[in-house]
Amino acid sequence: MEPAVHQIWKKGFHSLHRSFILHKRHHSGRAEHADIPPSNHCGHVGPALLVSRLYQPSNLRDLGQDSRLPGEMSCKSQRLMQQAGLIHPSNPGCYYYLPATVRSMEKLVRVIDQEMQAISGQKLDMPSLCSADLWKTSERWDLMGKELFRLKDRHGADYCLGPTHEEVVTTLVAHQTTLSYRQLPLLLYQITRKFRDEPKPKFGLLRGREFYMKDMYSFDVSEEAARETYDSVCGAYARLFARLGLRCVQVQADTGNIGGTLSHEFQLPADIGEDRVLVCGSCSFAANTETLSPDRTNCPQCSTGTLVESKGIEVGHTFYLGKKYSQIFKATFSNHQNKPDVTEMGCYGLGVTRILAAAIEVMSTEEAIRWPGLIAPYQVCVLPPKKGSKADEAAVQAEQLVHTVGQFLPRLRGEVVLDDRTQMTIGKRLKDAGRLGYPYVVVVGQAALEETPKFEVICQQTGETMFLSKDGLLDLLGTVEIV
Amino acid sequence: MEPAVHQIWKKGFHSLHRSFILHKRHHSGRAEHADIPPSNHCGHVGPALLVSRLYQPSNLRDLGQDSRLPGEMSCKSQRLMQQAGLIHPSNPGCYYYLPATVRSMEKLVRVIDQEMQAISGQKLDMPSLCSADLWKTSERWDLMGKELFRLKDRHGADYCLGPTHEEVVTTLVAHQTTLSYRQLPLLLYQITRKFRDEPKPKFGLLRGREFYMKDMYSFDVSEEAARETYDSVCGAYARLFARLGLRCVQVQADTGNIGGTLSHEFQLPADIGEDRVLVCGSCSFAANTETLSPDRTNCPQCSTGTLVESKGIEVGHTFYLGKKYSQIFKATFSNHQNKPDVTEMGCYGLGVTRILAAAIEVMSTEEAIRWPGLIAPYQVCVLPPKKGSKADEAAVQAEQLVHTVGQFLPRLRGEVVLDDRTQMTIGKRLKDAGRLGYPYVVVVGQAALEETPKFEVICQQTGETMFLSKDGLLDLLGTVEIV
Repeated sequence: MEPAVHQIWKKGFHSLHRSFILHKRHHSGRAEHADIPPSNHCGHVGPALLVSRLYQPSNLRDLGQDSRLPGEMSCKSQRLMQQAGLIHPSNPGCYYYLPATVRSMEKLVRVIDQEMQAISGQKLDMPSLCSADLWKTSERWDLMGKELFRLKDRHGADYCLGPTHEEVVTTLVAHQTTLSYRQLPLLLYQITRKFRDEPKPKFGLLRGREFYMKDMYSFDVSEEAARETYDSVCGAYARLFARLGLRCVQVQADTGNIGGTLSHEFQLPADIGEDRVLVCGSCSFAANTETLSPDRTNCPQCSTGTLVESKGIEVGHTFYLGKKYSQIFKATFSNHQNKPDVTEMGCYGLGVTRILAAAIEVMSTEEAIRWPGLIAPYQVCVLPPKKGSKADEAAVQAEQLVHTVGQFLPRLRGEVVLDDRTQMTIGKRLKDAGRLGYPYVVVVGQAALEETPKFEVICQQTGETMFLSKDGLLDLLGTVEIV
Repeated sequence: MEPAVHQIWKKGFHSLHRSFILHKRHHSGRAEHADIPPSNHCGHVGPALLVSRLYQPSNLRDLGQDSRLPGEMSCKSQRLMQQAGLIHPSNPGCYYYLPATVRSMEKLVRVIDQEMQAISGQKLDMPSLCSADLWKTSERWDLMGKELFRLKDRHGADYCLGPTHEEVVTTLVAHQTTLSYRQLPLLLYQITRKFRDEPKPKFGLLRGREFYMKDMYSFDVSEEAARETYDSVCGAYARLFARLGLRCVQVQADTGNIGGTLSHEFQLPADIGEDRVLVCGSCSFAANTETLSPDRTNCPQCSTGTLVESKGIEVGHTFYLGKKYSQIFKATFSNHQNKPDVTEMGCYGLGVTRILAAAIEVMSTEEAIRWPGLIAPYQVCVLPPKKGSKADEAAVQAEQLVHTVGQFLPRLRGEVVLDDRTQMTIGKRLKDAGRLGYPYVVVVGQAALEETPKFEVICQQTGETMFLSKDGLLDLLGTVEIV
């Protein structure tokens, strides 16, 4: 007997086409490796992903209504993400990330990994439970006040849930007593869940109490080397945002409770941004208003340009720390003279879940989500005709199209969904696809039944609509960048 | 000027060969997409990964000595993992996962994703901060006792750090008031960090207080359907362990504080295992001793076979829950008659970090780590000759080999490291490579300078040594499965 869970691939689509959908199904209950199902990057063409079975769009629509937590402020990205079944509120400032969000976040993590590893970042993973002793040593146990989630273990020992890991990573590096100047710079980073007891969590993933952050820490032999590393990380951030198509501004910033002597924020201009940013009209100068005296109107760099204020969402933050932590925790290395020397540090954050929400905030319309193409959960949505309509026969073409794309463009496997809710009109499903923001929507209608079948293709990033043959469509989709 | 961090690719290898290493280096400071560095699955051939610069083996060796936490029990996998720079202890039961471990864990996560998605599992991500109210509703707030890490937020509200998420996921599904029988079975899973305040954390990653777990939850229309789903998940677990080459036994188990009426553990036989398992010599019966009366010696299934006891490490656990949670939290669906009905649930755990450590525990010798090939951090280590030795000229061949592998076998990009510590003898580096357990070690020595260059290849899984031409080596490596 077939396990019930496999029915996901056949239920919800009319039986006429069942044989095709079942055709490539993974057999259950045997341990043959050849049967191992497809991942995104390898294996055979899998069955079509059916919209009716995704734990997301139509299925969750009712979750979007009035599920805002009492007293929390909402914004466009939060509203759109809840309506689309991307997130669902849990406790204040805590969200369920639903499957499409997880897909998008995993893509974003891959892009971040690529950029961090390109500048020789090495990825590790540090505990969330951080000993109070470490935070007392740096004097941040008191300094952080109520923002720190604190707890005791069964033996009464004090811990906090790490909102950032300067103490923890510096202790690790300090343990390596043989660290040589030849091994520096050393760049260590992690992409993990962080905790901060915000007084007023708001705007969905933009200001939560539990969120994903990429935090990198650098260790260098000298101030000069540390500043080169600092510039290199800022360059990687600029490349990352460029790949996402986000116009980020790097602004001079305050060092806050992290400390150090030099700091920049990466700000995404947006009306709901909580930061106020001044950008010079004449030169490259840009700064958070916190760093300038309130009555300043001319640019301190070129002194002629006028500063224009806008609001921004902080999506990244870099700090040159000097020896603040390495001195305290004795993170030393052997220098050229084989003498111990204290490392020069930097730290560099990226708000992973915040980038996701901020991108939706700045790219979407009031009604429809738009993603940076690279991190859209799915790249293509194929719409077969309404059941019982004149074009009904084209349903087979729609399924074959999904299969063909997987066959000729293996990179797109897992990236194509079939909107099998054929009891709904094309128009209604098109509206859903528009709201969800698939970069490419392919309508399989009357034109697919012509001698040379044609497909209506809507590029949602540009708003362009084209009628393409199967080959033309494959050519177009072949240009899509998948991460 | 070049940012200092890029020097990782050139420092540490003698200048003779620098030009090659630099040849394909990623240019810094510009946002050209063509320059985006390689990930594992795409992009151009990157620079060689140099062992001297990895935050792992030789660099960290001193961390391995006596860094056991006071009072904690150690075992082979913990000792080997600390010595190799795979993990480093933090607080009791909490570890830093160092870069090679993160690589291995990311591969394991990909295998788990493939197997869970093959049975239609959909991946989400739920908060770690769980409201006490939910846990009080299920009465587990008291039941869990000291194992639950508890904390208060700034407003005095009670939370725990989720060790498992039955309450949280059932609440989510209950929110979806339109759930139809057509959408079931629904399988939701996450792979996240979990917390449990163990009375005695021990054995490194085998029994920690903070660890990664895959937890899946299923929702079905009936008991019959739920049992089919249950079997389907057990099948996926069997396939997963088969792919890892781990001989796991599925045993009948106690339901503990999770509840429900049917449960199995997946046990990996090992001397340090904390579970005692009885396996029948005549039939397929196997059970945790907890589930049988202590004086039982004959098999309850075939009644003739003798039960043999062994110790096991529990790496997976499945529970058929029935309506225990769905009743309490009102997770209902519309049935065929369009009437509300309570879902039948199951839950299914896999210890992700525990599988990693358990695999090392059962596969390694006392001196040398052995990995399931599929999740080894790196597949290949290339050893160039000692500097100043007779074969010194072959160093160029070693670097070219790394490049060639990346060029002809793109799947292996990022999987090949070059042990550039050429101040050390081949013998010493071979010993290191042996201890670290790279599946393939390639020695580039005198034979590489012959008219038809030959390379010494050691397959560490089998212990076999071969002398292969470049083509022969590429053929061999072409068979390696990469996830």
